[in-house]
Amino acid sequence: MRIAELSRRADVPVPTIKYYLREGLLFPGERTSHNQAQYTEAHVRRLRLVRALIEVGGLSVAATREVLAKMYGPGMSVLDSAGKAQFAMVTPRPVIEDEAWEAATRHTDELIERLGWRVRATNPARQTLASALATLFRLGQTDQLKLLDGYARAARQAAEADLAQLRQERDPDTLLETAVIWTALGDVVFSALRRFAQENASYGAAAEEPAPSSARDTSEKPAAPSDPGVVENRTSP
Amino acid sequence: MRIAELSRRADVPVPTIKYYLREGLLFPGERTSHNQAQYTEAHVRRLRLVRALIEVGGLSVAATREVLAKMYGPGMSVLDSAGKAQFAMVTPRPVIEDEAWEAATRHTDELIERLGWRVRATNPARQTLASALATLFRLGQTDQLKLLDGYARAARQAAEADLAQLRQERDPDTLLETAVIWTALGDVVFSALRRFAQENASYGAAAEEPAPSSARDTSEKPAAPSDPGVVENRTSP
Repeated sequence: MRIAELSRRADVPVPTIKYYLREGLLFPGERTSHNQAQYTEAHVRRLRLVRALIEVGGLSVAATREVLAKMYGPGMSVLDSAGKAQFAMVTPRPVIEDEAWEAATRHTDELIERLGWRVRATNPARQTLASALATLFRLGQTDQLKLLDGYARAARQAAEADLAQLRQERDPDTLLETAVIWTALGDVVFSALRRFAQENASYGAAAEEPAPSSARDTSEKPAAPSDPGVVENRTSP
Repeated sequence: MRIAELSRRADVPVPTIKYYLREGLLFPGERTSHNQAQYTEAHVRRLRLVRALIEVGGLSVAATREVLAKMYGPGMSVLDSAGKAQFAMVTPRPVIEDEAWEAATRHTDELIERLGWRVRATNPARQTLASALATLFRLGQTDQLKLLDGYARAARQAAEADLAQLRQERDPDTLLETAVIWTALGDVVFSALRRFAQENASYGAAAEEPAPSSARDTSEKPAAPSDPGVVENRTSP
């Protein structure tokens, strides 16, 4: 197919396709004349993958190139490639090495040891977790640390369900794409479902909250659904 | 205290503090002369909150102002304020209204109904979830939809543990700050723990993966920890 059809099939504008070609996110088509090239189903598939990594995974062009290099690098098994791509998908955060950061890295190491999980020293998510915990230490919200073990159990269940699902896939290329895309998408899905669950749980909790501070107008009822007309679903589970 | 001490206490540079004052993220200090103002512990606290929302929550200055307006708006209960702030923390994603998007919104509605959760039509996380699911439909990775119910159970457990923890807090201002910050931080924490759990689970899975495609060099062993020296923790749970 020509580039116009590739654009239509993958729903990516032609100038964007040309940009991805220049940036090495898409391999070149087969040149048929000095200004034309033929593209294949493999190009459609790769473009959809690139688009998903950038739009939903929130990756930069440079990070996407890095992830693709890890995915399709030579001499690796499928799961090893997926693992390396997952490492490349973590955006490094700026680190301020204060006391809070030291307490947070110590807490991260202790959590991994307590869980008995095998997590490499090079796993970039160690820094992600430590950054988040450092914020709790800086804000004095250390009571929230009690939630970590429960979150770890939830994360373990999610990761094991992910892997069981991946094992159903027998085509190695689809397996690799799915593993990488779902790493990014699963975070977004969990975040959205957590917002739903927070709203749902808040309806039962409104009556039990502490008295509003004096700065608040207490004339309104504290019940959460102030406009019942927009509540979609009121059935209890 | 003067602005220099405020800067030191909150670990935010003076020019950034002045910027936040101009942008309305921080309320003004008490003016003591034409070019000096006095700041209080309330300023330190607010600055730390703003910094956490921007640095860890990834919010823009405009989104942070919106979240603060919802948090400290008049006439609301603490949990209602937290809920409104949570709504303001969701970054809207660009929507392409194709067939995949329609299937994804239908799937989102059906999931919420199946779960029996009360989730308003205005909850912006509906769009977040639908965007993620639309990507799965576009990539043909619809088998991953089977994972949704498990993720929903995990999200519910997390949200209920969050709420139980919040109920321990009797100071309404701390409760509000914690609820808002933890909404952002909890996502980051879960994402990091999921990466740990993925790596940990992969060590047991390497032997079971499908044969690598012909494009791969199969001369290397598919075992995941190719460099055992950097594995921090090898104890099985």
